[in-house]
Amino acid sequence: MGLIPKETKFFELFNNQMENILKAVSFFKKSLKENSFNDEAVKRVKEYEHEGDTITHEIVDMLNRTFITPIDREDIYMLVNNIDEIMDLINVVSNRLNLYKVDSKDEYLYEFFVNIEESVAALSNAIKNLPESSKKATRIMDYCIEINRLENAGDSLREKAISDLFEKEKDPIKVIKWKEIYEVSEAALDSCEHVAKTIEGILVKHG
Amino acid sequence: MGLIPKETKFFELFNNQMENILKAVSFFKKSLKENSFNDEAVKRVKEYEHEGDTITHEIVDMLNRTFITPIDREDIYMLVNNIDEIMDLINVVSNRLNLYKVDSKDEYLYEFFVNIEESVAALSNAIKNLPESSKKATRIMDYCIEINRLENAGDSLREKAISDLFEKEKDPIKVIKWKEIYEVSEAALDSCEHVAKTIEGILVKHG
Amino acid sequence: MGLIPKETKFFELFNNQMENILKAVSFFKKSLKENSFNDEAVKRVKEYEHEGDTITHEIVDMLNRTFITPIDREDIYMLVNNIDEIMDLINVVSNRLNLYKVDSKDEYLYEFFVNIEESVAALSNAIKNLPESSKKATRIMDYCIEINRLENAGDSLREKAISDLFEKEKDPIKVIKWKEIYEVSEAALDSCEHVAKTIEGILVKHG
Repeated sequence: MGLIPKETKFFELFNNQMENILKAVSFFKKSLKENSFNDEAVKRVKEYEHEGDTITHEIVDMLNRTFITPIDREDIYMLVNNIDEIMDLINVVSNRLNLYKVDSKDEYLYEFFVNIEESVAALSNAIKNLPESSKKATRIMDYCIEINRLENAGDSLREKAISDLFEKEKDPIKVIKWKEIYEVSEAALDSCEHVAKTIEGILVKHG
Repeated sequence: MGLIPKETKFFELFNNQMENILKAVSFFKKSLKENSFNDEAVKRVKEYEHEGDTITHEIVDMLNRTFITPIDREDIYMLVNNIDEIMDLINVVSNRLNLYKVDSKDEYLYEFFVNIEESVAALSNAIKNLPESSKKATRIMDYCIEINRLENAGDSLREKAISDLFEKEKDPIKVIKWKEIYEVSEAALDSCEHVAKTIEGILVKHG
Repeated sequence: MGLIPKETKFFELFNNQMENILKAVSFFKKSLKENSFNDEAVKRVKEYEHEGDTITHEIVDMLNRTFITPIDREDIYMLVNNIDEIMDLINVVSNRLNLYKVDSKDEYLYEFFVNIEESVAALSNAIKNLPESSKKATRIMDYCIEINRLENAGDSLREKAISDLFEKEKDPIKVIKWKEIYEVSEAALDSCEHVAKTIEGILVKHG
């Protein structure tokens, strides 16, 4: 990876993929904060997801047309799919909120999105440094450690949120709904960590 | 993959594996349609699963006795295990229906199995074309796109089914049971998509 | 793998990782049997998990500093992470028991830990034989088959436990809590099988 061919287009597209997710998460977080999460917001998150799919297909198509790739073909393929999963899970949270007709004004949910935004931002920075991974390995690893820390914080947040839910919410149907929403939110943080692990794996392979 | 050795036996066994799943799914769907899903049917789905295990072991054994394989050893190994997971999940749906003592006459569940049957059939066709993957890449990709479409349809179906469940079912225990049954049914479609992704990954690697 | 370089340190660390998990599981099982699972026990399981993290980081660090590895870099990386997941899930069961304020005196839960202890012990033995994998392939495969058998037994145990739960427990909140605890316990057995599959994959690759 020290001698990267001029195939920087893949990295550009990964950056686009991450920027799109970051926009979706920031929009989602803002709509939670301003208590403006409504049908229109659900639609807009869905649009970000479609945009993500478009970029994903563009990367896979390019992979099929490119002979020499800057990193292993299978690693590009794993990376693009794992990043896509983050966007999918953000969209699932949005869908569930809408579908389950719950009040999106929830302190824990907002905290999750503060956390998710930070994790997506750290991941975006890690990926920006990938083209010079041999020089920037330490910096990339620092971002991965930060993503890991945020995933641990998400675990604690989920525990607190669900523990609280069991104590305060007496309607079992609402318990079922919110438990799932918190779990999917936490899964979004898991998926960021999953990408970080994929990146670590790439660094290890070329170490 | 252009120059495939005469090791076509692996592909034959993959075809057997898919045919067995297709038979299991068709049987399951029919028993749901005819409202004849009973202890006998649970036993028969279990038998299909055992047959699947036998084929799976046959492939892994052959892999351990074969020096030159038509596609990478690790890809054969991933493929056989991912296909096996489809059969496992079909069996889990059957088990849950039986174990939870719910009435299997359910419109959404039947719709899931219509969808699963189509997805398994498309996957079976994709795998039939694998031995000539360099010539048939476009056709294989078309089947993979179809499987992806069916997985998306499954997501929508699950959303509709669970949304309906929350609105109409007042017994929380029944909500818990059916929510899981719908989720496992959708997971069967996910597992088909997972195999399609593995196939895409193989094509990408040899692209 | 016949000609393993003197890089036996990786295998030593894998053994340490497994031994730590085995200690955690034995302690957990004992505290369930003696009905002494309390805040102190939760803390101690957490300490085992931290110790596991330390060993995991040690292996990844060594991987980054080692040029020639006894088995493929990516396989070492997958192995260390998959083993770590077993420890994580044990800790999740402990956390949930504590968080959900349920009575840990439960026959099924104890049976799960009898099963998990056996599976972890078999995995530990499989890994002890990895340095001589070409000579000991049959023995390693036997341990993997045993782990597979225990995972199947875990599936049946979960079915029985949840079926019983649905029949006897009338409080839906308690159903939700115990269903998850049984599912995570079973996931710990799945994670053992996952490591066994990774080992099988390594044997297949070098077969």
